[in-house]
Amino acid sequence: MLPVEVIERKRDGAELSPRDLTDFLDGFTRGDVGDYQVAAFLMAVYYRGLSDAELLALTRTILGSGRTLSFDDGGPPAVDKHSTGGVGDKVSLVLAPLLAEAGLRVPMMSGRGLGHSGGTLDKLAAIPGFRTDLGLAEFRDVLAEVGCAMIGQTPEIAPLDGRLYALRDVTATVPSIPLIAASIVAKKVAEGIGALVLDVKFGAGAFLPDREDALRLAETLVGLAGRLGLPATALLTSMEAPLGATVGNALEVREAVACLRGEGPGDLRTVTLALGSEALVAAGAATDPDAAGARLSRLLDGGGPLARFRRLVEAQGGDPRVVDDPDGLPAASFRHEVRATRSGVVSRLDARALGWAAVELGAGRRRIEDEVDPSVGLEIVTPVGAGVEAGGVVVRIHARTEEEAGRAAGRVAGAIEIADEAPPPGPLVWRKVGAGP
Amino acid sequence: MLPVEVIERKRDGAELSPRDLTDFLDGFTRGDVGDYQVAAFLMAVYYRGLSDAELLALTRTILGSGRTLSFDDGGPPAVDKHSTGGVGDKVSLVLAPLLAEAGLRVPMMSGRGLGHSGGTLDKLAAIPGFRTDLGLAEFRDVLAEVGCAMIGQTPEIAPLDGRLYALRDVTATVPSIPLIAASIVAKKVAEGIGALVLDVKFGAGAFLPDREDALRLAETLVGLAGRLGLPATALLTSMEAPLGATVGNALEVREAVACLRGEGPGDLRTVTLALGSEALVAAGAATDPDAAGARLSRLLDGGGPLARFRRLVEAQGGDPRVVDDPDGLPAASFRHEVRATRSGVVSRLDARALGWAAVELGAGRRRIEDEVDPSVGLEIVTPVGAGVEAGGVVVRIHARTEEEAGRAAGRVAGAIEIADEAPPPGPLVWRKVGAGP
Repeated sequence: MLPVEVIERKRDGAELSPRDLTDFLDGFTRGDVGDYQVAAFLMAVYYRGLSDAELLALTRTILGSGRTLSFDDGGPPAVDKHSTGGVGDKVSLVLAPLLAEAGLRVPMMSGRGLGHSGGTLDKLAAIPGFRTDLGLAEFRDVLAEVGCAMIGQTPEIAPLDGRLYALRDVTATVPSIPLIAASIVAKKVAEGIGALVLDVKFGAGAFLPDREDALRLAETLVGLAGRLGLPATALLTSMEAPLGATVGNALEVREAVACLRGEGPGDLRTVTLALGSEALVAAGAATDPDAAGARLSRLLDGGGPLARFRRLVEAQGGDPRVVDDPDGLPAASFRHEVRATRSGVVSRLDARALGWAAVELGAGRRRIEDEVDPSVGLEIVTPVGAGVEAGGVVVRIHARTEEEAGRAAGRVAGAIEIADEAPPPGPLVWRKVGAGP
Repeated sequence: MLPVEVIERKRDGAELSPRDLTDFLDGFTRGDVGDYQVAAFLMAVYYRGLSDAELLALTRTILGSGRTLSFDDGGPPAVDKHSTGGVGDKVSLVLAPLLAEAGLRVPMMSGRGLGHSGGTLDKLAAIPGFRTDLGLAEFRDVLAEVGCAMIGQTPEIAPLDGRLYALRDVTATVPSIPLIAASIVAKKVAEGIGALVLDVKFGAGAFLPDREDALRLAETLVGLAGRLGLPATALLTSMEAPLGATVGNALEVREAVACLRGEGPGDLRTVTLALGSEALVAAGAATDPDAAGARLSRLLDGGGPLARFRRLVEAQGGDPRVVDDPDGLPAASFRHEVRATRSGVVSRLDARALGWAAVELGAGRRRIEDEVDPSVGLEIVTPVGAGVEAGGVVVRIHARTEEEAGRAAGRVAGAIEIADEAPPPGPLVWRKVGAGP
């Protein structure tokens, strides 16, 4: 079937055979199918979805585009965590050393920023010298030495996913349940881990803001992973407002380090512990999530995970001094305060609008080839639920220039709502989707 | 607005401001917006359509991407014809010299093949030496000398359209009423003509097979042209089966020359005369289409248009001998006959399937950069409505190799239906959509 006919069939809602779908994608890998054709196909999938058979074929094609690792070597259980993407989500930076400290192995493979949301790789790149482009041998070495290792997608693992991910980012085809599910599950199955914990976001800053859509995604992910032999558990967590108090790469590393020191913020710690306890259960290292959570909480306060993060930074070529002195991280030269226009309580900080403001400042990419600036971003001075006087600072913008700060200020101001009373707090962790009996 | 936000808004069905739409497209022209982003945008437009204001903004942006010509010089009225695209549609090759012979000026700008349909430029390129890449000065010279001139899109005229057209071709985003309308109307307004006649196809081989869809397109085209000051008339004509007896570039030139000699085939002549008579009326050179049609019919039989076509070929660098001896046209080395599997009457020759078969043989493009082979194509030996014995030839394939012919034969056989009785003939020219009251 010609590539344009594949697009046409999907456009019209017909089901593609696994063979035609695989041929189309293999053509993309070989260069016979253009990225513009895949972009149009992805947009058609956005509208038309994929059948179960198409989804399995897509996932297998992504998986089959590269190598599959294995950790069946009698060592500690290997687990990974994956978030569907949010704003200010620096959980991975805390969770990887925390789970390693709890005795698991965490071979974590993360992505770059996507659309308005940040990416773990971009955050790690803010640490001077930190290398996320380790080869697989080096990745295993760091994992053996530290108990966790954090890299990006390697050319060996699901290379097709990296290309699709970059294309979706700039073509508004990210929030598609089957595309998200195939991307995540293919990579995680390829990692050879024994269990997976998923952080599926809902709310304004999530790719699927609607809670029920997020639930469908969680079910799709857990089901697809199961069909490919990977036990998975998903938590549905809120992304109405940014997670924690910072958005932007160096700012987020600083905040993750504070959390590793046991210094909050509360929402980041809560989500990290909830995901961590499910990971311990999924890996068979605990039976009761509550008890597991209490254990992880004690570990965090004990300083072990912080020390382990320092070892991780050093093992991956980064400057470990930034763990103790975050002032060594890149900092933007220009600050601009966005102030409250009235007195009251901050009732809303729209995570999506703030995410786009950060992208505009340079913390993310408008186009595939854009460079990310690690220093820029947003600092939430007054979080949702806190009181503020008229003229008080709500958000501090970190920018390269006054002009760029001014441009972002309008977006940021539009993301802030102030009311007379604190809004009723929504659930931070809403539901769990398990793999089943 | 960021490019990805423009795609996102369109994806979600929100209306774009003329400014945002124009910025996005100007970004594409400058190279700041990737072709993969435009491809995703076009697919979103396929599903979501465009508002009247968006359509006008798109058309004006395409128009404004280049120069606008003018023929307000006191000379004969300047007219052009445009077809929405079909299979075997070689009307332009007959109509341009015919209207010139009738005293009009025909500055015709045509396109390349698009999807399964052929393009006038590809047909003209089958004439050895024929140049369709004339500069505008040379274009005017040929027009002054011959009364008609046939070129492709020049970099000066609506350059944005050429890029969008090439992209739509390979991303299954051709059959979108607003995209078709903007493309056609922008180019025709830029040509500076005084009247436009449109051949809007319906039926299996049309980009909009459904007759009512085609009618909506005709109305959109005529209305949009009117809002931009160009009087237009549209005829809705059938593309159930290929027009005439050939599909493929050199084969179609041969057939057009036969028609210019007054040697039919009937359907090609009928459509050409119907469009020609509307053009004469629209240009103010006739008042009654029937009388105009009779006049054009006499001209065609008189040989003047054939002589003028010879002059056109010569003026544009082509070998005029092929007009008198079409054996000088490129010919494929391999022939393969597709035969009737039973006796009866040919009741259907699916124009779309035959169009794709011709593309597969090399008469069109699968990807933007593909080369077209002028020699290959299909010859309809037994047309719809004609009787055939089992084993009789229905279609003759002209291919480069036996293997390619064999591959196309399956598609061709699937496009043929044979019944006991002749089907009731559908209308060849169904309706007219006029500009005014």
